[in-house]
Amino acid sequence: KWKGAPEFSNDDGWSFKPRGRILYDAATVSTPSGITDNGLGFSNEVRRARLGVQGTIPGGFEYKFEGDFANGGVELTDAFLAYAGKNVTINVGQHNNFQGLEELSSSNDTSFKERAAFTDAFGFKRKVGISAEYNNGPLLLQAGVFTDNVDDLAEDGNNSRSLDGRIVVAPKIGGNQLHLGASVHVRELGDTVTSVRYRQRPLVHSTDVRFINTGTINNATTESSYGLEAAVISGRFHAVAEGHWLKLNRTGLQDPSFDGQSIEAGVFLTNDKREYKGGVFKGVKVSNPVGKGGFGALQFNLRYDRLNLTDAGDAVFGGKQDSYQASLIWTPIDYVRFMINYAKMDYSDAAIAAAGGNRDYSVNVLGFRSQISF
Amino acid sequence: KWKGAPEFSNDDGWSFKPRGRILYDAATVSTPSGITDNGLGFSNEVRRARLGVQGTIPGGFEYKFEGDFANGGVELTDAFLAYAGKNVTINVGQHNNFQGLEELSSSNDTSFKERAAFTDAFGFKRKVGISAEYNNGPLLLQAGVFTDNVDDLAEDGNNSRSLDGRIVVAPKIGGNQLHLGASVHVRELGDTVTSVRYRQRPLVHSTDVRFINTGTINNATTESSYGLEAAVISGRFHAVAEGHWLKLNRTGLQDPSFDGQSIEAGVFLTNDKREYKGGVFKGVKVSNPVGKGGFGALQFNLRYDRLNLTDAGDAVFGGKQDSYQASLIWTPIDYVRFMINYAKMDYSDAAIAAAGGNRDYSVNVLGFRSQISF
Amino acid sequence: KWKGAPEFSNDDGWSFKPRGRILYDAATVSTPSGITDNGLGFSNEVRRARLGVQGTIPGGFEYKFEGDFANGGVELTDAFLAYAGKNVTINVGQHNNFQGLEELSSSNDTSFKERAAFTDAFGFKRKVGISAEYNNGPLLLQAGVFTDNVDDLAEDGNNSRSLDGRIVVAPKIGGNQLHLGASVHVRELGDTVTSVRYRQRPLVHSTDVRFINTGTINNATTESSYGLEAAVISGRFHAVAEGHWLKLNRTGLQDPSFDGQSIEAGVFLTNDKREYKGGVFKGVKVSNPVGKGGFGALQFNLRYDRLNLTDAGDAVFGGKQDSYQASLIWTPIDYVRFMINYAKMDYSDAAIAAAGGNRDYSVNVLGFRSQISF
Repeated sequence: KWKGAPEFSNDDGWSFKPRGRILYDAATVSTPSGITDNGLGFSNEVRRARLGVQGTIPGGFEYKFEGDFANGGVELTDAFLAYAGKNVTINVGQHNNFQGLEELSSSNDTSFKERAAFTDAFGFKRKVGISAEYNNGPLLLQAGVFTDNVDDLAEDGNNSRSLDGRIVVAPKIGGNQLHLGASVHVRELGDTVTSVRYRQRPLVHSTDVRFINTGTINNATTESSYGLEAAVISGRFHAVAEGHWLKLNRTGLQDPSFDGQSIEAGVFLTNDKREYKGGVFKGVKVSNPVGKGGFGALQFNLRYDRLNLTDAGDAVFGGKQDSYQASLIWTPIDYVRFMINYAKMDYSDAAIAAAGGNRDYSVNVLGFRSQISF
Repeated sequence: KWKGAPEFSNDDGWSFKPRGRILYDAATVSTPSGITDNGLGFSNEVRRARLGVQGTIPGGFEYKFEGDFANGGVELTDAFLAYAGKNVTINVGQHNNFQGLEELSSSNDTSFKERAAFTDAFGFKRKVGISAEYNNGPLLLQAGVFTDNVDDLAEDGNNSRSLDGRIVVAPKIGGNQLHLGASVHVRELGDTVTSVRYRQRPLVHSTDVRFINTGTINNATTESSYGLEAAVISGRFHAVAEGHWLKLNRTGLQDPSFDGQSIEAGVFLTNDKREYKGGVFKGVKVSNPVGKGGFGALQFNLRYDRLNLTDAGDAVFGGKQDSYQASLIWTPIDYVRFMINYAKMDYSDAAIAAAGGNRDYSVNVLGFRSQISF
Repeated sequence: KWKGAPEFSNDDGWSFKPRGRILYDAATVSTPSGITDNGLGFSNEVRRARLGVQGTIPGGFEYKFEGDFANGGVELTDAFLAYAGKNVTINVGQHNNFQGLEELSSSNDTSFKERAAFTDAFGFKRKVGISAEYNNGPLLLQAGVFTDNVDDLAEDGNNSRSLDGRIVVAPKIGGNQLHLGASVHVRELGDTVTSVRYRQRPLVHSTDVRFINTGTINNATTESSYGLEAAVISGRFHAVAEGHWLKLNRTGLQDPSFDGQSIEAGVFLTNDKREYKGGVFKGVKVSNPVGKGGFGALQFNLRYDRLNLTDAGDAVFGGKQDSYQASLIWTPIDYVRFMINYAKMDYSDAAIAAAGGNRDYSVNVLGFRSQISF
């Protein structure tokens, strides 16, 4: 059985499937007058180069194991074992801590090269922990306790702890898939961690420039955040709105708050639709792939992506982003995608000053991606 | 054919099998009065995250290749090619240098979360080299010349050399598997390596605290060591005793000696037994797995684990450990394990002084492991 | 279908194959009078430890993904996706930039442990970019734009750019395979890169000593180079000649030139021959493998390998190498090789001075390799 790569299985409940992806990115970022940075202009990179396996073992056991070899090293992504019962799944190891709809959906299936700005700014990433999921019809409940990313745990002073929970109601009404979700997160920073930093690139990842950036915020102790999600898939059309609000507690100092929101809408120009399952988006199943004489799937998306890293009342001035984005995605066949993104990034109170000390300026970004996954 | 993952083979002698494991650990280490360390209290980690392949090629050739992605990078474990004749096997590349019964048995199959304290303290690990094995009925002879671990060889001043040999006699008497073994090792340190350090964690690996630790021992030139092994498997019951004695030669200074021993006994509460083959323990083959309506295998083990890193006569005071340990292992089905460990660690002359300069104290350790392998 | 490892495929155009190799090297380098270096004498290493996958997706898409785990980390080798039409192939991601015949041929199939000295000295390696290939009968055209290696791109100041092209004419005349090729390369160094260094080991890679070495050359801006290739396979016999000429442009300083050439001839003592396809050498298909009662293939090769890193007129004195080499390769069965190499390295104006300030001396090198690939 082929799912990009072969999936091997037998009647006893054993299965095994290799998995991987190669995402190549190129982009240009326009240069605001008076700013010099190696990350401006053209940049490119292998954005993700992942290889791994997943499988099942009789009795309800499952595992997923994948590493990312982009960026000159290896970073473990998923590395967990699970027990999947009828309505309950228990996960142990490194996995996502239920941050939100777009973060939990695969990077193979996003509508833009990068997820909404807040997902990276607020440090969403997989962490080591134990969690449980309960699903029953349109209802999905997820909750877990987490510590840190595998890499950070190599140092035992990085012993942060978090409690994370998410609820999703995803009814199907008249052929339309609805999705409403909310998540809450409380995270105590590790013993030897006393500062945080929130920042974000201009849409594309191949550059390292960050026009908005809180810089180091000291005396940090605890992060509390919550997210709200809403989405609809109706035939060729889909729309998503998602937001995340974060408050940082500090000892002896004010407690600043930051937030980000994105609204996205898209339509397939071909006879295709976005897939959805288990509280996340899934990859399109191309109705007329090139391998069988078709053209593949073509999708056009628009997004408004806002991020606010300034809390003037609490004396943190990281800057604000209002980004207007468009993407065109061609999926010639399942597991292959090509994507063009354009973004106009409007910054105010930017962390990097342009000519004349100007911190309110715009940046144009054009990005390209080639993607293969299995 | 399934061995956790599918094994592909054909009649000509070709075969190929993916292999891997995910071991997730959590533990608590009690805090002796007056000691502050980030590694005390709760800690957790992905202990091992290995992925690799093994295969055979017609004509008697074999290979094994595996990397460990835990701890924020990749460490090559096995990476060797072999020629396997009727009674003789030749190995070339990185593999274990015949250190002893428990070290050579897979970490998937040990009775406790970590092997006996001396195995890690004396730096047992895979090394690059060439070796030969001869087996004939109950007799197994192993010998090889080794240099360093792949990672260390990146620097060509780390050119240590060792000669390693092991003999095993493993008769089956009246349905009982006996095992008697002995190994000898002589290792010349690399040209640019002039010091060594012996130390050990309190049973669990997720913490980085070491209550016993020789610190840096200078003027080191050569390590000589030998090990003795004895084991028996009798139905549901098994017992193992193993020890290792190491002498460090130094230029112009005394030559200190260190040693460790462990004695272990265990019994399956279900109708199962430990497996043994080729001079090492193998994983249990669960007689009533959960996938077929059974309960799996349940095993209870006790161990006394001693390590002596003090040689007062030669002025090295690393401390002594007497550890009393218990483990409960549930194997619901082959390739999946859950384990709880308890240890009372009695230290004397510890390297870390507690309140009032006290170096004789006890530490309680509780550990948990989830494990999936294929 | 077995190609070292199993290749899975179906009628729709899907295919998937694991790939990997383990190359173990040992060598001795003789010590010129008066030179002390840890890399002299015996050295050994795991030279390559690669694991990856390759596959095809219906509609003409392909991918290849491999990492090298030797040397204490992971280095991404191939990581590209491709579209393969009838006569045209488009590659996107990290791949080779058409440097020359020997560099583009797999390291599994070279006649000596290392390629000609200029390939490493001039920094040939895979880079991220986009390229196109056109083949039609005996004609092959290759061209692309490239930036840097994946690892280097992690830092966005390393934004070098190169244009690379190669033409090959490879007619088959009277059962003999001819090969004529030429390549050109222009590379602008990255914004933050202002120096280069050219150097080379004495044939074997397990040592880190470099008797010839330009040292750091400052004010570097652009490298221009071209290569010429000629080869013939006639029954059991083959011969290759290849050369590369490089000019370095500098700001405000002279522009030095360096070059290297190698000539190689070999003959199979058994009834075997070198394979050739798509502008590169391929692995021998052993006619009488050991698995079927044969002896395998035995090949003997001679090579003269020259490298000139001195440009006296432009005041760079890196030294010259004239190397006379012999190799004996035993391939018991496809995918397994054992190799012995001998080299007499004649250095003049060497970068490391021997006793009495002597910079003209000879070094003897003996090397061994065990190799398994799939």
